[in-house]
Order: sequence, then structure tokens, then C-alpha cells
Amino acid sequence: MKFAGAHILSIDQFERGDIEEIFRVADEMEPYALRRKVTRVLEGAILGNMFFEPSTRTRVSFGCAFNLLGGNVRETTGVQTSAIAKGESLYDTARVLSGYSDVICMRHPEPGSVAEFASASRVPVINGGDGANEHPTQALLDLYTIQKEIKAKGGALDGLRVAMIGDLRYGRTVHSLARLMALYKNMQIVLVSPVELAMPEKYIEKLREAGHVVDVSTELTPSIQHVDIVYSTRIQEERFASKEEADLYRGRFRLNQAIYTRYCEPNTVIMHPLPRDSRAEANELDKDLDENPNLAIFRQTDNGVLVRMALFALVLDVVDDVDKHAQRVNWYHTRG
Amino acid sequence: MKFAGAHILSIDQFERGDIEEIFRVADEMEPYALRRKVTRVLEGAILGNMFFEPSTRTRVSFGCAFNLLGGNVRETTGVQTSAIAKGESLYDTARVLSGYSDVICMRHPEPGSVAEFASASRVPVINGGDGANEHPTQALLDLYTIQKEIKAKGGALDGLRVAMIGDLRYGRTVHSLARLMALYKNMQIVLVSPVELAMPEKYIEKLREAGHVVDVSTELTPSIQHVDIVYSTRIQEERFASKEEADLYRGRFRLNQAIYTRYCEPNTVIMHPLPRDSRAEANELDKDLDENPNLAIFRQTDNGVLVRMALFALVLDVVDDVDKHAQRVNWYHTRG
Amino acid sequence: MKFAGAHILSIDQFERGDIEEIFRVADEMEPYALRRKVTRVLEGAILGNMFFEPSTRTRVSFGCAFNLLGGNVRETTGVQTSAIAKGESLYDTARVLSGYSDVICMRHPEPGSVAEFASASRVPVINGGDGANEHPTQALLDLYTIQKEIKAKGGALDGLRVAMIGDLRYGRTVHSLARLMALYKNMQIVLVSPVELAMPEKYIEKLREAGHVVDVSTELTPSIQHVDIVYSTRIQEERFASKEEADLYRGRFRLNQAIYTRYCEPNTVIMHPLPRDSRAEANELDKDLDENPNLAIFRQTDNGVLVRMALFALVLDVVDDVDKHAQRVNWYHTRG
Repeated sequence: MKFAGAHILSIDQFERGDIEEIFRVADEMEPYALRRKVTRVLEGAILGNMFFEPSTRTRVSFGCAFNLLGGNVRETTGVQTSAIAKGESLYDTARVLSGYSDVICMRHPEPGSVAEFASASRVPVINGGDGANEHPTQALLDLYTIQKEIKAKGGALDGLRVAMIGDLRYGRTVHSLARLMALYKNMQIVLVSPVELAMPEKYIEKLREAGHVVDVSTELTPSIQHVDIVYSTRIQEERFASKEEADLYRGRFRLNQAIYTRYCEPNTVIMHPLPRDSRAEANELDKDLDENPNLAIFRQTDNGVLVRMALFALVLDVVDDVDKHAQRVNWYHTRG
Repeated sequence: MKFAGAHILSIDQFERGDIEEIFRVADEMEPYALRRKVTRVLEGAILGNMFFEPSTRTRVSFGCAFNLLGGNVRETTGVQTSAIAKGESLYDTARVLSGYSDVICMRHPEPGSVAEFASASRVPVINGGDGANEHPTQALLDLYTIQKEIKAKGGALDGLRVAMIGDLRYGRTVHSLARLMALYKNMQIVLVSPVELAMPEKYIEKLREAGHVVDVSTELTPSIQHVDIVYSTRIQEERFASKEEADLYRGRFRLNQAIYTRYCEPNTVIMHPLPRDSRAEANELDKDLDENPNLAIFRQTDNGVLVRMALFALVLDVVDDVDKHAQRVNWYHTRG
Repeated sequence: MKFAGAHILSIDQFERGDIEEIFRVADEMEPYALRRKVTRVLEGAILGNMFFEPSTRTRVSFGCAFNLLGGNVRETTGVQTSAIAKGESLYDTARVLSGYSDVICMRHPEPGSVAEFASASRVPVINGGDGANEHPTQALLDLYTIQKEIKAKGGALDGLRVAMIGDLRYGRTVHSLARLMALYKNMQIVLVSPVELAMPEKYIEKLREAGHVVDVSTELTPSIQHVDIVYSTRIQEERFASKEEADLYRGRFRLNQAIYTRYCEPNTVIMHPLPRDSRAEANELDKDLDENPNLAIFRQTDNGVLVRMALFALVLDVVDDVDKHAQRVNWYHTRG
């Protein structure tokens, strides 16, 4: 795809080459995220960070990514119903707001709303999550993390062995990740969930059509023995009829250091889309894993900044200019 | 008036020459709004964007205008009652907050509150709307749009023919616009509303005292036949005793492409302060007008950024310095 | 203490030399706060201004301080319960959010939460108030103001004579200030409160251990006759069982110009942590004092910006670089 001026709405719009381009640019952003230098390439540009549903970390991550490229951020932080209550269409909202900025990140509770907004926008729109529908930057940062972790261990996305664990029925991130994995080859995928929370058939088919070997399981320990990645997820309580119904499944698959040591390969990487549910009744990933160097959950959120910087740089077509506007960093930090 | 260091509280503070100066500076801001260049003239300056009542687009418009001049924005986005609940006076709030920034935009639900705040502020204050009282930047952007549109067609504000339509009783913007129009000459103004929602007599008198011809009507189609501008407004539902009472008037005057083609002159410009009510029962401006090049409603909001940039540049006295601090734009855009 | 990379969590972490260093740097920040020049020293740096409890002025003060050093601000403005409701630990929140910025200011209603957050953060954390526990920057700005005011009159912190008045039981700021004063010598301190709202014994002991003379009183006028500073506070209504109970104490100690003229020395400085309760039934500091040049309450909030700039400069280790990145100010202002 041509990135300059494009909307980023769905992972379905990417081919494998597009993903590789995003990841290559994300790699180039690392010196800036590590504060080895700063860049002014987007000095004067404005991000409209339009969050019509609260999501602190996604919002802040997008905002920081834009700041790290030298740009300014204007934003909304939650429900803004006034104009809509007065009968305004999403078309009008988009026409107006797109007059204020150079690119828009939008989150909205309604599935499809971001695409509808984008069709009326005069500037590129990046989907920051539209309800149960899509959250493309989360899927990208997950796959980018997998690639980075596996590469550091001499592996590659093609041939990956992965266990996806937890609420595979309602978890938006595992669906999106499955769709992205279908762009790669020869994966071995184990889907571990309660029967009632199994991955929907259409995603499994997609993975099999891509030539991957897909196994389905209801048990944790046999499934995590020969994998490169354990991708754990929480029970999506808000999608169940009641807390009680969610409680039936919560805590079914718990990984801790003892289980890890006993069953996993020494270098198996542990991931989670966060937030992880650390309450005693859930505790998907025990905190005794926090010192395990293979726990990659915070590298995932760090990588989110890189992926978002890459998307901004691509959509605003400044990839080749970032370094030209680089500056020294003056302040104390322990990152780089 | 002398703009440097002045508060912008009410349109009554302007003479015709002041309006012309604001509009001239707004014209000069266009290359920046169109991203032909960026300026650092306000680098290091801070806007206190104090919205004590939510208004996403006005807030974001002010913030973007300040960013486009190179400044930073610190803001509040809604009701902040804590200090007031603890018995703090508006005087104290103003003394404190004006210590944090170089200029303040303030929106507040209470009429007169912004002027009271300004009297205690140590930096210039721009009124971003104080309840039913004033919203001067909206009136300025409306008149600026009218001038720009009419000029492009060879006309001028003096001699303008305009139809103002809808809820002329409660609509704050039509009142403010009427007061601004009283500074010009030889206008022909048709005021179209239900009898119960007629423009208050004091505004009509003001227009007549200025020498304008003012007609009052309850019918749409005869009123829009020989005008340069159709300025439509929504029913201000929140000002009625009930939704049912507002429903009595909603949808009374609907403009669509068929009516436009049949009754309007070929170049009649369509305006609206937004949000337009697009629900079936209202639909003041049908969406089949969206492709009509004379629909200026989104040019209005775009012009809002120019007018706000102009006010910042005037109040902070940097009009002649903006270009001195200009830079190249590096990123992809389709504006200029 | 070594400031570079340190957390600022409690005033107990400071020795007298540390306080003096902070105040010395705060003095150096004044030309920037007065807009005599701007600095780009933190260009590209990001402050995570994480307010999990609303506090407009503290939040804006931190944000402005960071902007004045050239940095960017990303923030939350209120309760963000989503991730926590999903069972996320403060440890995880800290690991994630500290990946987005170079320094974090955090406010949170739970005592101890900021220290817990800091222990997991990968960047320095400054406590912006954690419930009834600590608000170190308020105590620092208070003492900084006392020093500045008293120095202008030829005095010093050692030997200070001060009356602290009002709700000394629940007022967090007087407790913190008392702890700071224990670092100095030969003070004469009068504690004026209703018996039921007396300063807790442990703070009084701390002051006496430091060698200060501490008197306790229930009457205003005899207590303010021979002091350099009158530090007035409001009744912390939110800490009482009912408004009615708070009303028992409200308005007990009222200072106005007549009382000031009759009882105070000509140069006695009047301070208050703000907000002052200006309702008739409270009116701790009458508004007829607003023109009294010794009313320092708004100089206190102005000094808050200087102290916060100093902390940022120290923690990010750029004190010696601020001036190297100085620029001219282009815009109109009446500060410097």
C-alpha cells in the first residue's frame, strides 16, 4: 500500500510487505524512543488525539509517539456527547475536526465509526480502537514484539510456534493477531481456552488456509511445552452477562515461575496485551514472573510507541527526514 | 482599540477599523493554516485554555491556533468545581491561573464570569463563551467567512443581502452577528423564524439604526430568493422548557438542494454556526447540500482557526514577527 | 541527596542542604518564569502528568513549569479506573506509563500510592499529592516563599517568627511545612487553632526538638503581633463528619485590613496555601487585604512554578544547561 496520506483503519488493509515496512521504520525510531537523540521533523504539525472513549495508555502512547517526532498534540479525553446530542452527524464532526490537525487518532465505542469518520476526514485517520471491531496498532505492536523477541533468539516469524491462551472468543487482540499471522508461513499455533471461549471458527480457518498447523486445547501445561511465545489474555469480563459468569472462567489458566520452569523451554517469551488481571482469583501471569527476562509484557507497550511513531512517519511521509532534523538530548535518562 | 495586552471579551468593544484589522491579520495567517510554512514566533509561550464548560471544538480550535503560532497549550477540559466548592472566588482563581500562562482562553457557563475573571487576570483573556452572554470569536469567524465568500464573488460587506433563519430568539450567534453587522452599511437583512422565536427587538433596532433594511418573515422560500448569504441555525433545544416544546419548531425551515436550486441565486452562500441538527425531524441543511460548493459551513470552522490565530497575534503583539520565524513544512499534506 | 534520576516523594528525604540547592535553582529559573527569555533545554522531553485525582492548578502548574523548560506534556486529568477495574496492579500501571515519558508527576487519592508507583517506575516520579499523606512541592513552595519574602525584608529562615492559623489538625500543608521548618534554627512559632483542631503533638515535638520556641494559642490577635509571617489556612471541611461540624470552626479566625493594621507589624507577610474560603461564613483572609503589598498568597502560587521548574531541572540534571539553550522572547507581556 501507499502510506503517505492513507488512513490506518484495519489490519486487513496490509499485505506482508506493508507490515515489513512498518516494522523496518519502527526499528529506525528506536534511537529516538531510547532518547539517544530527538528529532524536530514534525515541528509545527498537530495530532488530533480524539478519544471519544477513555483509554489512558493508548491515548498517551499515541501522544508521546507524536511528541517524539517533534509534533504537537491536541486532544479529547473522553465522552463528548454535546454536539452529537444536538443531532450532529459523524460526517460533520469529521469535517470540522479534520480542519484542526494534520493527522487524527480516533477511538470510539461504536464498531465502524472510525472508518465512517475517516471517509469524511480531510486528513489521515488512525484507528485507536472502535469497540469490538478493530484496534490495529495493538495487533501491530504485538506482532512487532514477537518478531523482535524471536529474532533476538535467532528465529523468525515464519516457522513461529505460539500458544494463545485465555478468552479467545471475546479477546479482540487475539483475533487481530490471528489475522496478521495469516500473512506468514509454517506457524504452529496452539489455541488454549475453555470450550465455551474458543477462538471463533473463521479465524482458525484463516490460519489453516495460510498453511499453519493449528491445535485446539483446554489444558495449559501440555500446550506451552514446545512454543516460542506464550500469549496470555484476560477474561473479557465486560462481554459476559454477569461477573458471576466471568468468574466461571477466570483463573483457569495461570502461569507462574514454577510452571514456567517445569514446562516451558528456557527461552519461551511471555506476552499479554495488558492489563493483566492480578487479582487472586485471576492472576493469569503471576508476579513472580516479573523478574523473568523472558516476560515481554512491558516491552510490548514500549514497542507500541515505536510502531505508532512508524505509522505517523509513514502516513505523513517523513521517514527519510527524521534523521535530518535530529538533535542532541540534554537531560538525564537511563534508557539508551 | 489597542490590541497588545487587551482582553477580548465582547464584540461591543470593536469598531469597524478593529474588525478590519483582525480580518487583515487573519488573511496573513492563511499560509500557516494551509501548512505552506510553520512559524516559531510564540515558541515558549503558554496558552491557558481554561474550559470550565466542555466544548470540544472551540477548545481544540483555540489550542490549534496557538500551536500553529509555535506556542504550548495547557488546559482544563470541563467542570472543575473543587476550588470553587471550597469557597474560592473567581478573583482568586484568576489571580492564580494567570500566573501560569501568557494568555488565557476561558469558557464558563455563567454570563459575565469571563469579564469578572479578566478583571483580576494578570494576562490577556479571550472569551470562549460565557453562557448565553457572548461568544465573540464565533461572531468574528462568521463575519470573516461572509466577507471572504462575498469578496470571492466580487461583493463586499457593505451592501450585503442576508437571510438569517431559525431560532433567532435564543441563538447567541445570530445576536452577536447582528451586532457586528451594525458596523457596516446598506445591508438588506431578512429575519426568518417562527413568530415565537423572532429576533429580539433590540437587535432589530440596532440594525435599523445602522441604516440597514430589515424584513421579518415566517416563510423560508420567499426570503432566500435574492440574498448573498443564507445563515441557518438550529433550534436551541436546551433553552426550551421541554423537548416537546422544541419539537414544535424543529424542522420548520429546511433547506435542501432542490429548494436551493429552485429559489436561490446560483451563488448564494449557505452558512450555519454548527452543529447542524441532521436528525430527520430537524434537518435544517440536508446532506444533499454537502457537495454544493456554496456550502460554506466547514470553511467557517476552518476560518475560526485563522481568526483565533489573528487574535493571539494581535493580543500578544507579534503580527509583524510571525514571518520572521517561519520554517519549511516537512510532512505530507493536501492543504496548501 | 543526589537529585539526578531521583524520585521526589516526601519532604523527609531532604536535608537542609538539599532545600538550599532547590531554592538556589528556583532563583535561577526566575528570568524564564518572568519571560525575560525562554529555554529549549528540555526540547523533546516528555512529562507524564498523571493526575488520578483532579487538581487543576497543581496539574497546570507542573505542566507550565515543564513547558517553560522547553518540554512537552502528556497528561491525564482525573479518575482513570478502567485498567484498575480490570484488576491491574499499580506496579503494572507504573511499568507501562513510565515507558512513555522522561519524568512523571503523579497525584493519587491513596496515601502511599505514589511511592509504590515510583518503586516500579523506570523514570523519576514527583509526588503531586497522595491523599492525606504528602504534597512535597506545596511545602517547598511555601518555605521558598517565606525565605524570599523575609530575605527581601533583611531577614532569614533561621530566627523566623511565624504564626500558623486555622485547621492545624487536618491541614496537610501545615504538617509538611512544620517538618521542613525543623531543618532550620531558632524559630518562634505560634500555633493558633480551636482546641479540637490543634496541631498533632508529633509535629510540635519535632519543632521543639529542633530548638524552636513553640507556643499554642486559641486566639488570633495576641498571636499575630510579633511575627514575620502569618500563615492562615481554611477548615478542611471534607475531613469532618458533616458540614455542620465544620461550621462550628469556620470563621473563627478572620484576618482583615483593620485587624492587620491594628495588631501586625508593618511588614508582616500574609500567606495561605489556597484556596482561601471567601464565603461570608469563613472569610479567613478578607478581600480588603487584596491590595495589601504584604499579601503574598499569589506570589506563593507563582513561586510554585519556580520550585517545580527547579525540581525538573535537578531531577533531569540540566541545571547547568538551561541558559545554554536560552532564546529571546518575542511576544508582549508585562511580567519581567
